[in-house]
Amino acid sequence: MNPETRHLISADVVERVLKAASQQKYSPNRIAATLRTKRSGVIGVVLPDIMNPVFPPILKGIEDELARKGLIPMIANAEGGKERQRFVINQMVGRHVDGLILATSARNDAVLEHCLEEGLPVVVVNRSEESGRVSCVVSDNRLAMSLAVRHLVELGHRRIAHIAGPGELSTGFERRRGFVDSMRDAGLTESDCPIVDSLAYSRDAGHAACRALLSQGVPVTAIVAANDLLALGCYDALVETGLDCPRDVSVVGHNDMPLMDTVFPAMTTVHIPLYDMGVRAAGLMLDTLDARTSGSVNVVLRPELIVRRSTSAPAAA
Amino acid sequence: MNPETRHLISADVVERVLKAASQQKYSPNRIAATLRTKRSGVIGVVLPDIMNPVFPPILKGIEDELARKGLIPMIANAEGGKERQRFVINQMVGRHVDGLILATSARNDAVLEHCLEEGLPVVVVNRSEESGRVSCVVSDNRLAMSLAVRHLVELGHRRIAHIAGPGELSTGFERRRGFVDSMRDAGLTESDCPIVDSLAYSRDAGHAACRALLSQGVPVTAIVAANDLLALGCYDALVETGLDCPRDVSVVGHNDMPLMDTVFPAMTTVHIPLYDMGVRAAGLMLDTLDARTSGSVNVVLRPELIVRRSTSAPAAA
Repeated sequence: MNPETRHLISADVVERVLKAASQQKYSPNRIAATLRTKRSGVIGVVLPDIMNPVFPPILKGIEDELARKGLIPMIANAEGGKERQRFVINQMVGRHVDGLILATSARNDAVLEHCLEEGLPVVVVNRSEESGRVSCVVSDNRLAMSLAVRHLVELGHRRIAHIAGPGELSTGFERRRGFVDSMRDAGLTESDCPIVDSLAYSRDAGHAACRALLSQGVPVTAIVAANDLLALGCYDALVETGLDCPRDVSVVGHNDMPLMDTVFPAMTTVHIPLYDMGVRAAGLMLDTLDARTSGSVNVVLRPELIVRRSTSAPAAA
Repeated sequence: MNPETRHLISADVVERVLKAASQQKYSPNRIAATLRTKRSGVIGVVLPDIMNPVFPPILKGIEDELARKGLIPMIANAEGGKERQRFVINQMVGRHVDGLILATSARNDAVLEHCLEEGLPVVVVNRSEESGRVSCVVSDNRLAMSLAVRHLVELGHRRIAHIAGPGELSTGFERRRGFVDSMRDAGLTESDCPIVDSLAYSRDAGHAACRALLSQGVPVTAIVAANDLLALGCYDALVETGLDCPRDVSVVGHNDMPLMDTVFPAMTTVHIPLYDMGVRAAGLMLDTLDARTSGSVNVVLRPELIVRRSTSAPAAA
């Protein structure tokens, strides 16, 4: 079936094989065949920000699942723009990885395009990819935001702000949309529920966004942050401004990354099964390598609200 | 000078060069020469535990410093014993990395031996290597423990426990020795200052060790933990036992890993310049690759005690 090795077999055998294949409508899966013969045992994993504590549990899940088949992940950080990402991914490809698990991709990602052009199996983790050309493992961001907003509304909050994540990332984009929908579903007024965009998923960016929110003078009693680092930045800004969390302002995070139970106040946050997310992503990669599946799938995990100490009824209620 | 390429040059030139080199006692650095020609641009970094938050700042430092020369780190986790470490490192070597930065090595490490046999440049970070065959970047663990113990003694503590890290790791070993020395220097009694060994650098292991300590019935008023995760485990055990930190028991951590300012109570801990540690380790690797240095060096960074809310005078004082 392979034109490159056809000369090794006598011409009449080649002809009979091709004829039989044609009758059975059999077409060889080139990528799978190549992988079966040239398997390197290493899966590249590309992160957007190694300092974000959300990734270690995902990486651990990936590692444990790959280990069951004797494969190992090799991790690279690709911060600082698309050029850098492309460079890092090219280095991965040059090291002959069997496939790539990307936690980096933006909503319409040229880098992803590049990987697909290289013919490399790709799975995207904690991001969704809109074209549907690759398999993704995500958490249900819309559901997550409705859990957060409903919790606050049940406590009596009516003026709830959202510190949004970067809009070019699916998590930032979807959580923002989820917030708007949930706010409307709860019958809240848009002008009472300001949205402030943050520039990055970092504590500093959350601090800056919360400062900007507080300076707007909209008297919110609660903040839903698009992730835990942004929520920690809100903690910092509230302390600076002399506001108490949760007495003056309740804060909800997102991800339930490690140590969120030990911060002060212990953070109410949307728990995402991060370790499982890694396990699933690695599982999809193994399926792809073994050509057990064709086409792409979206695995959507169910988030869960963990109520701790950073939310309470508003003081006025 | 290279026998493999000598045929490219006329015989009399070769003879003159060799004669001149011999007179000057010049001997070519084969490893450096190979690297100069076969440089892959990738440095392997091997971690013992990707879930330990101490590593991301170190990795970031490594990445930033390597980036200045256009190199990138590729990271692998090598938990679960020497066999697994060897497997992971072999995978790295097979991917043609230019060198390895190890955060894994034990005090007498067979895996390190293996890397040296492979002829690969190696730098060890956050661990020391006793044979002196490779360059290391470490923090001054003895000094760190004296800072922690002196701080507690100045607050009035006389009964101070140590939750020790794993003894096969240089950090666990040296911090334990540092604790014993500092305790003696302060004139404290050994029986008042119990040491409990932990099985791993983890929150769970710290929890178990602290439970064991409390069940011994030695009435300590302070605990010096060998790292921040162990100290967080002590927080958990104290809460469970109904003891207040710092009122009943003061706790000192080690490393000042990210978020230690936001935990409750904000942790008094020994700050290690983790980012700088990564920068230095990458710098030593670059020096080795460029053959700018020969022989191994120990870079010892200066730790600093950060006093936050987990330590106070003992209730009895």
